Amino acid sequence: MYTLIDGKAIADQVKAEIAEEVKHMLAEGKKRPHLAVIIVGHDGGSETYVAHKVKSCEQVGFTSTRLAFEDTITEAELLAEIDKLNADPDVDGFIVQLPLPRHISEQKVIEAIDYRKDVDGFHPINVGRMAIGLPCYVSATPSGIMELLKRYHIETSGKRCVVIGRSNIVGKPVASLMMQKAYPGDATVTVCHSRTKDLKDICLQADIIIAALGKPEFLTADMVKEGATVIDVGTTRVPDASKKSGFRLCGDVKFAEVAPKCAYITPVPGGVGPMTIVSLLKNTLLAAKGEIY
Amino acid sequence: MYTLIDGKAIADQVKAEIAEEVKHMLAEGKKRPHLAVIIVGHDGGSETYVAHKVKSCEQVGFTSTRLAFEDTITEAELLAEIDKLNADPDVDGFIVQLPLPRHISEQKVIEAIDYRKDVDGFHPINVGRMAIGLPCYVSATPSGIMELLKRYHIETSGKRCVVIGRSNIVGKPVASLMMQKAYPGDATVTVCHSRTKDLKDICLQADIIIAALGKPEFLTADMVKEGATVIDVGTTRVPDASKKSGFRLCGDVKFAEVAPKCAYITPVPGGVGPMTIVSLLKNTLLAAKGEIY
Repeated sequence: MYTLIDGKAIADQVKAEIAEEVKHMLAEGKKRPHLAVIIVGHDGGSETYVAHKVKSCEQVGFTSTRLAFEDTITEAELLAEIDKLNADPDVDGFIVQLPLPRHISEQKVIEAIDYRKDVDGFHPINVGRMAIGLPCYVSATPSGIMELLKRYHIETSGKRCVVIGRSNIVGKPVASLMMQKAYPGDATVTVCHSRTKDLKDICLQADIIIAALGKPEFLTADMVKEGATVIDVGTTRVPDASKKSGFRLCGDVKFAEVAPKCAYITPVPGGVGPMTIVSLLKNTLLAAKGEIY
Repeated sequence: MYTLIDGKAIADQVKAEIAEEVKHMLAEGKKRPHLAVIIVGHDGGSETYVAHKVKSCEQVGFTSTRLAFEDTITEAELLAEIDKLNADPDVDGFIVQLPLPRHISEQKVIEAIDYRKDVDGFHPINVGRMAIGLPCYVSATPSGIMELLKRYHIETSGKRCVVIGRSNIVGKPVASLMMQKAYPGDATVTVCHSRTKDLKDICLQADIIIAALGKPEFLTADMVKEGATVIDVGTTRVPDASKKSGFRLCGDVKFAEVAPKCAYITPVPGGVGPMTIVSLLKNTLLAAKGEIY
């Protein structure tokens, strides 16, 4: 019988811990941690994510600022807004919700953010410090996955870990974390991707599979070893007329057939997803406390 | 019959190409590329490496500056010297030879170097940009390995690559490069280390093995698949009375028994070693031409 990794419950637990810490900070006369979020345009997904982030800030007692701009904003204007937040001593951390309109360079925007306020962990300095194993802001999804492994006391040292997908925001950083001399970590990590041959054989050797390729129900039961831990990072929107929104979130794992073989598995939704906002809150708390830089 | 990867010959070839490019730059009225090297104390290995670097600069027509300090220099004084080089418009790139005396923080020194002049590629910005796949200064050993694979036209796409060792200066960055969407790269990379179980089985699956753990003759024939490519990064000094220096360099691969199973293999010395200085020269050339930043 497998254990379902309840990301929602863990997220609530971590949020409660953060809220408790904010109370202590206020009792000590400190200011509330302050997260600012920049959103450009009216992408439905982005607006939902930003609304969640703002609401989560409220839940834990953070101040939040939502700065919304039309998608006619120029790159120079956006960079000027970023400079304002960089210089604002009340803002502990901020993020620019991606994606951005095509006329704006996302990489330029990411690098314009003061790395000491880069609570999304996308700035090259934070990426580099993570690779080296130095204190830094770890980006939301990899950080959320680590937190789940930790809270469920899942053994990682010496385990075979297969990461499917080599994106800059999930695959590569989670692989980097899983191989660090730390817990969770110390795993023997293999990164697979579109060019990988015999993916099935490689997956069958894995004690831990982290599926982050964005292909609905890609990982099937015949690819998973008995007793493995499966972390599903996929969140593809699949049309579903029975839902009010017209879609449902679909993971990269064929859950119904894979779960019975697993020791631990995350569902979609309710697995990694809820953890990502929590990681953002944790980074903002670290920023407010000056614990990284 | 295996092909011996001749790092010395490739290094000479790349040096000749760089020298040619310097001639063109001078003909166009540009200044010579200028590398500065800081050395602290009198470590025998460090003095030899620095002497090689200075000599290589001469060979390709670079200006070089060797700044030597006693190991009584304070951290603050050293950081002040770094600031001078950061500000010197004639210096295109510079390095601080490691290791440093214990009273000086190597990490603080590395981060004090302007990343745009960090031709060793150790600054977190360069490490992070490499992980993301952006233009950057790649550190010497990983860059040298890539160059060898490229010059020998060794197929890497879709190949199983096993990296033994997870150091910040070799294992992790070379793994990162081998998994990038590029050539060399696009490999399915597994990083092994001290906590890895069944290392032998993992190595036996590898088309390419990069041994970078620093244990003399660790990789034996029973760990290598017929037709594999083996890159030996080890350079341990082993006492040898028959040598004038009193030691010989010993690789991580038991060459005599492994070589007959290989398609390609690097010797030690004369494999990866000679390429590291060449990578430093290449980075300095890129710095002089302003091609990265």
